[in-house]
Amino acid sequence: MSSASQSSWEPVRKVRTYEQVMAQIEQRMLEGLLAPGDRLPSERELSQLLGVSRPSLREALRVLEALGIVEVRPGRGPEGGTMFVGRPGDGFAILLKMQLALGHFSDTDVLRTRLMLEEWAVADAARNATHEDHEALRGILDRMDAPELTARDFNRLDTEFHVRVAESTGNSLASYLMSSLRAAIQRQMIDVYEQLADWRETARAVRAEHREILRAVEEHDVPRAIELVCGHINDFYELGSFSDGAAERDH
Amino acid sequence: MSSASQSSWEPVRKVRTYEQVMAQIEQRMLEGLLAPGDRLPSERELSQLLGVSRPSLREALRVLEALGIVEVRPGRGPEGGTMFVGRPGDGFAILLKMQLALGHFSDTDVLRTRLMLEEWAVADAARNATHEDHEALRGILDRMDAPELTARDFNRLDTEFHVRVAESTGNSLASYLMSSLRAAIQRQMIDVYEQLADWRETARAVRAEHREILRAVEEHDVPRAIELVCGHINDFYELGSFSDGAAERDH
Repeated sequence: MSSASQSSWEPVRKVRTYEQVMAQIEQRMLEGLLAPGDRLPSERELSQLLGVSRPSLREALRVLEALGIVEVRPGRGPEGGTMFVGRPGDGFAILLKMQLALGHFSDTDVLRTRLMLEEWAVADAARNATHEDHEALRGILDRMDAPELTARDFNRLDTEFHVRVAESTGNSLASYLMSSLRAAIQRQMIDVYEQLADWRETARAVRAEHREILRAVEEHDVPRAIELVCGHINDFYELGSFSDGAAERDH
Repeated sequence: MSSASQSSWEPVRKVRTYEQVMAQIEQRMLEGLLAPGDRLPSERELSQLLGVSRPSLREALRVLEALGIVEVRPGRGPEGGTMFVGRPGDGFAILLKMQLALGHFSDTDVLRTRLMLEEWAVADAARNATHEDHEALRGILDRMDAPELTARDFNRLDTEFHVRVAESTGNSLASYLMSSLRAAIQRQMIDVYEQLADWRETARAVRAEHREILRAVEEHDVPRAIELVCGHINDFYELGSFSDGAAERDH
């Protein structure tokens, strides 16, 4: 009795209608009643079933849509309606981008977290990547050699390489964290490239470093792969803009 | 010219009004025009400024609220309105919980990702934690010794210990990832405890393991700290329910 009376109390706060709608949908997910590919009833039907107004229901659906949990397609046919998606989506990247914009995390923390994820990914990839993984990675690096790439396209392929390394580990949650983080800082990375007098020279160094990383992964050389990745990322941050920004914001 | 005509094309998709509102707000954040503690104009004012309907504006605000980017307080006074918050919030934990419920990530991936984050955290803490960190960690373990704790309270303190270890690294983004992951699986962890014939016996083992981990951190013994944390987490998952679930869902 004493533990029940003293613990587990939580402050009461107003629960909004859209939160109650979300809670019911989440409960059904947890019970396995809603799975990827399933559709919700129409807005009209669902608002009646739940006894809530259309605008309140739509708020809940927008939140789920923005989080990448559902996709809302126009129309009533077999293609239309609110469907639960089967992939993680980019909800965390969107959230993270806003959190970074508001200064919730410093540039130093972003760099250290990237290093942590990249170290883990490349070590695990050097241990476990298959021949198929190596082929896929080589394919990306070949595409990065195309001379007419823009800074933006180059950065997109760069992201693809690093995310593909993480995917070689077979751990989809950790690669999701990695790709979300990369997506959240993509604009900032492209800015760094575009501010360089000659970004193509930097790109040449990046290309060579990627080839070396791939070689270490193919040779299952874990310590070498880790060393190369850390050097590779630190080199990029030392290009200037990032570290200045970090110093400024951490101040 | 050839690169401009061949690259950077993206499929066109319908952009909804609430997304345009969010994009404008995000742009202002990125330009530093909106910072934690700042307030948005009232809904009436902002809907006029943006030329959008109140329901569309409210959808955008709900999304930002659900992501934990803004807090919406009732009333018009100095306490009321839509304010940008200064902490990361629990947006990622909410997202992750739904992604796990929909089976976007397997239990095995959750376990491996926890191990990655915990290994990094304890190693960095063993290198860098201060006397103050040690004191704080000891305080949590002392509270976990209280005999009248419920399984729920015990788990909450357990989470607090692991998150506090991550915070000892000074990397707020990586500790945010850790605490979000813990929060997303909390219900599942409590279920494991509650299904045990005698959860207090398990709690005794967990307590002893925590003390050992803290000792390794205090003694700056990095390899020992890593070994202990991995054993600690694997022990918990071997309690049964988790690994069965993983096998079932990964199938």
